Amino acid sequence: MPEHRTAEPVPVHRLASAREVLGVVGAAELAMFSRLSKDAQHAPDLPGRVTLSRMAAAELASLDVVEQLAERRGLDFFDAVGTYQGLLVDFDRRTAPSDWWERLVKTYVGYGVVLDLQRELAGGLDEAAQEALADAVADNGHGDYVAGVLGPVLDSEPQLGARLALWGRRVVGEALAVAQRTLVAHPGLVPAQDAEEGASRVVTRLAAAHADRLSRLGLKP
Amino acid sequence: MPEHRTAEPVPVHRLASAREVLGVVGAAELAMFSRLSKDAQHAPDLPGRVTLSRMAAAELASLDVVEQLAERRGLDFFDAVGTYQGLLVDFDRRTAPSDWWERLVKTYVGYGVVLDLQRELAGGLDEAAQEALADAVADNGHGDYVAGVLGPVLDSEPQLGARLALWGRRVVGEALAVAQRTLVAHPGLVPAQDAEEGASRVVTRLAAAHADRLSRLGLKP
Repeated sequence: MPEHRTAEPVPVHRLASAREVLGVVGAAELAMFSRLSKDAQHAPDLPGRVTLSRMAAAELASLDVVEQLAERRGLDFFDAVGTYQGLLVDFDRRTAPSDWWERLVKTYVGYGVVLDLQRELAGGLDEAAQEALADAVADNGHGDYVAGVLGPVLDSEPQLGARLALWGRRVVGEALAVAQRTLVAHPGLVPAQDAEEGASRVVTRLAAAHADRLSRLGLKP
Repeated sequence: MPEHRTAEPVPVHRLASAREVLGVVGAAELAMFSRLSKDAQHAPDLPGRVTLSRMAAAELASLDVVEQLAERRGLDFFDAVGTYQGLLVDFDRRTAPSDWWERLVKTYVGYGVVLDLQRELAGGLDEAAQEALADAVADNGHGDYVAGVLGPVLDSEPQLGARLALWGRRVVGEALAVAQRTLVAHPGLVPAQDAEEGASRVVTRLAAAHADRLSRLGLKP
């Protein structure tokens, strides 16, 4: 190890804590499984129900990958995921949808933020882990499904669009608050000298990605 | 075609209707996916939640098999499953569990009957289809899970056992009624000269298998 001979800042750890990152990613997969399987039961038609159920099941395949990664690193999978088990409980309580459209948008927005967060965090792991998690943090098609279902309806009902844009703003506010709180409370998630600063940097990127995602639906971010 | 020269009964079709059987099997997989994913969200611990979520996801893999079988036979998958989409809706409404134990037993009993029904119906298809469906109608480990969780509790709380035995009787009554109604309403499901008689034959076997299953938990059938 070279000595520090200048007044440069102490180098931070390049890698995030695998235990913390796998914990969040695993808990997020489980939460999204619950969310999508619940959405499936509210789907107004059978193809929608099957599509959403299949997306839910795919989250569980990702959970298997997380478990394998944890085991290979000698980490206790349930212990790691257990730390973040309540990740979205509060979020869910505060964003109970009042109809199918709000439900669709809630998952679209909330899932989008969670998926982006998973990607940000996975990026802090070593390359082998990043590669193993590539499928887990890949787009599962939910966005396409929502755009396909909601697009034609919004075209003919501008008032619904206005209501859902408002709703989306409320949902993203709650989702970003969860991300911020989680990152600050667990500094091992994002390698940074200052946890608050590291968290804010990530949350700013999550907010920007959300705005793009909402525009895709034709809703004002 | 040989002429009928004797007074022998008109030969019945040897095989069940693939459309009807695949419809029931597919609808049952979807219903069990919903049931198990809901149960997972009520699980009192993380390992239980993960175990039940994984069982739910496995049902979706079976649904894929049903879809492939339907397509290979030129059947409309959604049309076939759609016929039986409401299969367990009434059952679910009439057997709302009041606690975790009732929930466990409800799925154990209801799932057991549904799985046995799927096996009975799959047995009416050609050999290739039976082989393809073997995994779909295999034991998914839910019974082991319930026996493992409930066993020690029942040993120390005989009163709970008495309550759950009563509850199991109510649940199986509703489940067998669903099976009976479905078989009578869709004579293509069981090849028989008389739909009522064919249905009763199957339901009798379902009831016997249920009694064995309940005994396994140490509950009086």
